[in-house]
Amino acid sequence: MEVKLINEPTLEFVDLAIGKCYDMGAYFPDEDKACIRINKVTNVYKHSSVLEFAEYVFEITASTKVLLEMTRHRIASYACKSSRYTLDRGEVVFEATGDPEIDYELSKWKVTIEKMIKDGKKNDVVSLMLPQAYQYKWVMKINARALHNFFELRLSRTAHSHIRDIANDMWELIPKEHKFLFAQNHQR
Amino acid sequence: MEVKLINEPTLEFVDLAIGKCYDMGAYFPDEDKACIRINKVTNVYKHSSVLEFAEYVFEITASTKVLLEMTRHRIASYACKSSRYTLDRGEVVFEATGDPEIDYELSKWKVTIEKMIKDGKKNDVVSLMLPQAYQYKWVMKINARALHNFFELRLSRTAHSHIRDIANDMWELIPKEHKFLFAQNHQR
Amino acid sequence: MEVKLINEPTLEFVDLAIGKCYDMGAYFPDEDKACIRINKVTNVYKHSSVLEFAEYVFEITASTKVLLEMTRHRIASYACKSSRYTLDRGEVVFEATGDPEIDYELSKWKVTIEKMIKDGKKNDVVSLMLPQAYQYKWVMKINARALHNFFELRLSRTAHSHIRDIANDMWELIPKEHKFLFAQNHQR
Amino acid sequence: MEVKLINEPTLEFVDLAIGKCYDMGAYFPDEDKACIRINKVTNVYKHSSVLEFAEYVFEITASTKVLLEMTRHRIASYACKSSRYTLDRGEVVFEATGDPEIDYELSKWKVTIEKMIKDGKKNDVVSLMLPQAYQYKWVMKINARALHNFFELRLSRTAHSHIRDIANDMWELIPKEHKFLFAQNHQR
Repeated sequence: MEVKLINEPTLEFVDLAIGKCYDMGAYFPDEDKACIRINKVTNVYKHSSVLEFAEYVFEITASTKVLLEMTRHRIASYACKSSRYTLDRGEVVFEATGDPEIDYELSKWKVTIEKMIKDGKKNDVVSLMLPQAYQYKWVMKINARALHNFFELRLSRTAHSHIRDIANDMWELIPKEHKFLFAQNHQR
Repeated sequence: MEVKLINEPTLEFVDLAIGKCYDMGAYFPDEDKACIRINKVTNVYKHSSVLEFAEYVFEITASTKVLLEMTRHRIASYACKSSRYTLDRGEVVFEATGDPEIDYELSKWKVTIEKMIKDGKKNDVVSLMLPQAYQYKWVMKINARALHNFFELRLSRTAHSHIRDIANDMWELIPKEHKFLFAQNHQR
Repeated sequence: MEVKLINEPTLEFVDLAIGKCYDMGAYFPDEDKACIRINKVTNVYKHSSVLEFAEYVFEITASTKVLLEMTRHRIASYACKSSRYTLDRGEVVFEATGDPEIDYELSKWKVTIEKMIKDGKKNDVVSLMLPQAYQYKWVMKINARALHNFFELRLSRTAHSHIRDIANDMWELIPKEHKFLFAQNHQR
Repeated sequence: MEVKLINEPTLEFVDLAIGKCYDMGAYFPDEDKACIRINKVTNVYKHSSVLEFAEYVFEITASTKVLLEMTRHRIASYACKSSRYTLDRGEVVFEATGDPEIDYELSKWKVTIEKMIKDGKKNDVVSLMLPQAYQYKWVMKINARALHNFFELRLSRTAHSHIRDIANDMWELIPKEHKFLFAQNHQR
């Protein structure tokens, strides 16, 4: 499991968007002044649509389980490694489950899958054997408003450990100057 | 694999929406007259936003593979059987892959999964063993505009056989009076 | 200003969607039992995505002001009378502003606009004279999840009186058996 | 009427997204090689979802007419100068209509509106007098996939002149290295 933040997210356009609503101009490059106003408008007045002006692009390597849950967040963009085009290239990798006995069974199942690939079975059919531990790779672009909702649901103690781990890593990766946007989601 | 259309879709509101744009009123209950106008506006003038006023609700039983691809259609609503809450209740079912050898391997893998469930492993962990052949059940609501796009991509010969089969069944299920909306998608 | 609810909204598919998640089946036609479960899942557990399975279709006659604000609710479908095609047919109507002096000025402005239409000016140009009091007609389809958000913002005392009036009328029109879905929005 | 492109749009993440699908990596910083692949995937194969990874932020000053039509493009983000908070500050400005007689009538109407503001009428009421020629200011963020659709509809000869002018200016502003993404929309 691995997550990288691959763009350089900025609050500059959130600041500009707020300035536009009140016809008061942008406060950037005075970031401190801008963030005080952003906090007031988004966290206090709950005027959250301006948060759409900040975007985060993550590169993610994680289990099919995470992919299944993450893509249910529909206000975001995804590009995912296609098992159709790539399964017979490179190694089949499973994420650890945290249960040694199940990891052992999965290691045997992996051998079976790799045998089918070597036997020349088509990717489209072999892919039906891939367990939810199977590691996919994808890129996700999400704006701060949708990310707020994502953190609210996925940092929760009740979330599946795989997606909670990813959500925690995403939280660590966002610039510390942006964390006030999501602070409420992290107070658990 | 099974699909049912569970609402009674109507073009009544598409007709009304068009009538509203031109301030000409609805043609319903004269469905023939309405459909001639709907065809002209949506298929000839490509004014497709009015298609959002027709909704289809499907109840679907299909492989995880299909779920993974279907939920990438983001302009639709989904409610899916949760493996977290239901895996240890009832039987684990796999969809056929079309390859006897792989089906045989999957049947053995199913026994392993069921053993883990009986041993009391938690659903969240055992679910990481579930292959993409595993059968999920879900409800999908989609409007005619998004369904048009769905058919365009998923009725294609290049689509994975599992999702193409589902798309074909969905095509069969829509009322025959609605098929002109999607006719272009079906000319493969 | 006028609003009509023109479909027969049902909670049947919300009930089915919830039943699908837990693999417990639908409670409908036992609506009381269904609504107790819907209330628990959506209002208590805040699992709001299932609310997307209820749709409301409204036919609205209101000021341009309301149109401008309403269409900012992007998760909804709209079909609006086109001033391009209809301005020179029928009467130009303005909504009352609540201020007699301004209503008087508007009544004179209306005469000027009607003169331009009679003089054969094109609708596209004359439409640039239309004030925000100008009455448009449109159809809006919105699901219960988006309507929840709409009521939250637009039933508020701080909303513009024109849109608050519309929101209040919409609130009155939804079936009384559905009001528990939005009750929190109405506690002002 | 004025449009500015205020971010520095990049195709870097579109390139990365495509590389991810085929597990072939990014071609950037070799932009030429990247654009050849982007062109093939998006214009030839019509795999347009990866276009969502490029974003454009525009600062726009234009008539209410344009605002009304532009915000109907729902897959985009908007922040607009609020007449409620700003009408009594600064000048009331109208965009030219292209018809001298109508411009003359509008200039008189402007005096009437300004008188109401000076008389202390509330912004919420006076705003109901604002014609569709009234100049708003807003920020719009739109991804390349939605912008493609925007250009398709709004660069058309049948579009209203105000929005076609804006669309043309937007077309001029996008970096020349990005124009191949929208070239089909510009062949009018």
